[in-house]
Amino acid sequence: MNHSMIRYVLGAVLCFESIFLCLPMLIGFICGERSAFAFLICAAASLVIGGIMVLKKPKRTDFYATEGFVSVSVSWIAMSIFGALPFWISREIPKLEDALFEAISGFTTTGASILNNVEALSRCCIFWRSFTHWIGGMGVLVFVLAIFPLRGGNVMFLMKAESPGPSVEKLVPRVKNTAMILYGVYTVMTIVEFVLLMIAGMRPFDAINLSLATAGTGGFGILNDSAASYTSAQQVILTVFMILFGVNFNVYYLILVKRAKDIWHSEELKAYLGIILASGLLIAYNIRRIFPDPLEALKHSFFQVASIITTTGFSTADFNAWPSFSCAILVLLMFCGACAGSTGGGMKVSRIIIMVKTAVKEIFTIKHPHGVKTLKVDGRVLEHETIRSVNTFVVIYALLFAGSVLLVSLDDFDFTTNFTAVAATINNIGPGLSVVGPAGNFGGFSAFSKLVLMFDMLAGRLELLPMIVLFSPLVWSKHR
Amino acid sequence: MNHSMIRYVLGAVLCFESIFLCLPMLIGFICGERSAFAFLICAAASLVIGGIMVLKKPKRTDFYATEGFVSVSVSWIAMSIFGALPFWISREIPKLEDALFEAISGFTTTGASILNNVEALSRCCIFWRSFTHWIGGMGVLVFVLAIFPLRGGNVMFLMKAESPGPSVEKLVPRVKNTAMILYGVYTVMTIVEFVLLMIAGMRPFDAINLSLATAGTGGFGILNDSAASYTSAQQVILTVFMILFGVNFNVYYLILVKRAKDIWHSEELKAYLGIILASGLLIAYNIRRIFPDPLEALKHSFFQVASIITTTGFSTADFNAWPSFSCAILVLLMFCGACAGSTGGGMKVSRIIIMVKTAVKEIFTIKHPHGVKTLKVDGRVLEHETIRSVNTFVVIYALLFAGSVLLVSLDDFDFTTNFTAVAATINNIGPGLSVVGPAGNFGGFSAFSKLVLMFDMLAGRLELLPMIVLFSPLVWSKHR
Repeated sequence: MNHSMIRYVLGAVLCFESIFLCLPMLIGFICGERSAFAFLICAAASLVIGGIMVLKKPKRTDFYATEGFVSVSVSWIAMSIFGALPFWISREIPKLEDALFEAISGFTTTGASILNNVEALSRCCIFWRSFTHWIGGMGVLVFVLAIFPLRGGNVMFLMKAESPGPSVEKLVPRVKNTAMILYGVYTVMTIVEFVLLMIAGMRPFDAINLSLATAGTGGFGILNDSAASYTSAQQVILTVFMILFGVNFNVYYLILVKRAKDIWHSEELKAYLGIILASGLLIAYNIRRIFPDPLEALKHSFFQVASIITTTGFSTADFNAWPSFSCAILVLLMFCGACAGSTGGGMKVSRIIIMVKTAVKEIFTIKHPHGVKTLKVDGRVLEHETIRSVNTFVVIYALLFAGSVLLVSLDDFDFTTNFTAVAATINNIGPGLSVVGPAGNFGGFSAFSKLVLMFDMLAGRLELLPMIVLFSPLVWSKHR
Repeated sequence: MNHSMIRYVLGAVLCFESIFLCLPMLIGFICGERSAFAFLICAAASLVIGGIMVLKKPKRTDFYATEGFVSVSVSWIAMSIFGALPFWISREIPKLEDALFEAISGFTTTGASILNNVEALSRCCIFWRSFTHWIGGMGVLVFVLAIFPLRGGNVMFLMKAESPGPSVEKLVPRVKNTAMILYGVYTVMTIVEFVLLMIAGMRPFDAINLSLATAGTGGFGILNDSAASYTSAQQVILTVFMILFGVNFNVYYLILVKRAKDIWHSEELKAYLGIILASGLLIAYNIRRIFPDPLEALKHSFFQVASIITTTGFSTADFNAWPSFSCAILVLLMFCGACAGSTGGGMKVSRIIIMVKTAVKEIFTIKHPHGVKTLKVDGRVLEHETIRSVNTFVVIYALLFAGSVLLVSLDDFDFTTNFTAVAATINNIGPGLSVVGPAGNFGGFSAFSKLVLMFDMLAGRLELLPMIVLFSPLVWSKHR
């Protein structure tokens, strides 16, 4: 393994984090908050350590899948540690494991919190929580690639390891330009949401935080009731932008280059919007007794569906108290997730499409054992390797899921809590049902369970393999 | 599709069922029970209808995968209907859907019941419930193949469609002889269990019923408290035989032909016994506060582990009240299931082994992208087709599971109930947790949910494809 390249990438990430940390620091100093010093210390530490690591350029620039996976997972862990320290140093989150949980939950855009009183936090800490969503949503290494001079080696492996979805496409021939376009679209859309929320009468600080959290499909609220106390207009804007940030960013690129017609060739987009529409209407009908006004029912239903399928995790109502059928739909949406190439988590709609097509093909093959056995998506034949990797993903996902539920159950909460806590973290959603429902939080878990859930959040965000590779003796052994 | 062959197979199955129905009828008449007449009527009807269907031999004998799948699923549905009618005609189970649920639960060796007072049933009905387990455990079509003259066509497709596990091996070159050996071993083992239970002091009627139910890994108890009121010695015998009937029957064939040493080449057997040992010890430790006597804890723990992993479903204690960690282990064992080629249900240990190996290979491939990419089980290289079919199985399983949970949740029970009710039926176990826990039953579900769960039981017993093929427009359409 090329350790010097991994060291170099890690150093670059820490340098960027130090810049990111300056933003909450500034807000803290402006508001006259003591916690600002915590951010100052961490920004400085991050800069010094990162600076030392990038000082010496790597001699060898060979860079393969293992290096890609290890760089990404190590970077995300380091980033989370430096992101957690301000919470801990400022004593706003007294326990180190809780601070780390909150930071990982932020960067992985999960939005699961251990806090039961968010409103007690200082403004700089609240802003940092939302900002971690924004940073983690698009991915830090994509950002590094967009700006840092990382020559030589196949850097595409980095992007592949960090990007969500079964296959990664470069929009333009150069990785750097692809990353620039993605970040450009991301920033513009975040600003548009901010402006619209302001027009709808939201306070600026709320609007900034919610825009950042929606963009990353994160879900940290800044009020204890998440998004319940905002006006209907504001909630509708949030719903629309959650859905927009769950769309594959290639779609926006196509619109940018005036090929808007081509976006309807995407089966994933159609399936994604179809699932949202169907789930929203079914739930609205199912909760008609709780919200007698049909518009109110539709608003809550679509808000929740958008929030869960995009794995954002905001809530306008305690859906834990909704009928079982609505809860079951929401739990299934947790697994479905948003589109590949979006900032959302979960298994991704494109994987579900491939799964369904695999099943249909299997049945079809029974009747026509000698028929043509190709799977097509968007009119193109799927490569055997893609199908295989989706199947393997499902298998690894199931095994990790089962193992996590087992370990978390040591805390002796009920089955629904254990199951949905794992579902909510591995899919980067945030709230689950029962104890970890929208009205609850993850603070009651033991330090060990929190560790398991942190691993799940990182594994989920990085699409399983990078984290598993990092902790796999198979990859680290010199022999074999 | 060759309809006349399907008709012929179906007829043969009904003829056999009429013979099977005579046994409870005889018991009924001996005990002087009125319900015996219900069995007489059904046996006669089954014989007449089956007889008419086999009267005309099929002209064409071509027989492929579609015919295999359709014959098997249609036969099982017909068999369940004729098996349900005695319950309904005798008015012992007044609702038709409940009678059908009980019969399907019996034949599929699930053991989930809609009755809250089993002890109120007549002896002939109790015996019929246990006997359906025994018939369904080994499979009816295997029995038909063992005796009926079904010449021509590739009858191996029939055995493939009905047998559990990812790959079916013929023990001896002729299908008929393989089926005879299997049924021979099955019968002898059932008799041995019966004799041992009698020696341990169990009443003959209890011993017969429990032996039949254990052999099929069914789980219908004949007492309201399932197996809780039997003596420790009797419970230990049940534990041992549940484990034995969860072993691949090839193992017994190897012992029969004096190749006992070869059985330890089976990775599945070692994994199966290892999982039982590990789970049993973990749970015994976890429940040490409920049963202060260590031997008592071990007895309950191993009984429950054996009962769930083999998907039998007997219980000696209300494990719904055990700590979460124990419940989580049991829920995972529900999915694991017994060995392929046994009478148990679930996903089968061999599939889990292939899943784990697929995952390990994937991680290994990252480091050695050009390394050799073969999976080995029992020292032999796995065929690509087997790996693919396991992956497809997992995908179809996940989709069916998700859909079923959604539909069942319309009844508005809690999430644990919905989730474990589907898990307990699709894996042919019997009891789940919460409302459908060992102390509860499935009677509270709506007729629609019962229908969904019946489909799941049949789909689970026949390893998904036959039932899905039967209801798939893809297979029935003449075009394409």
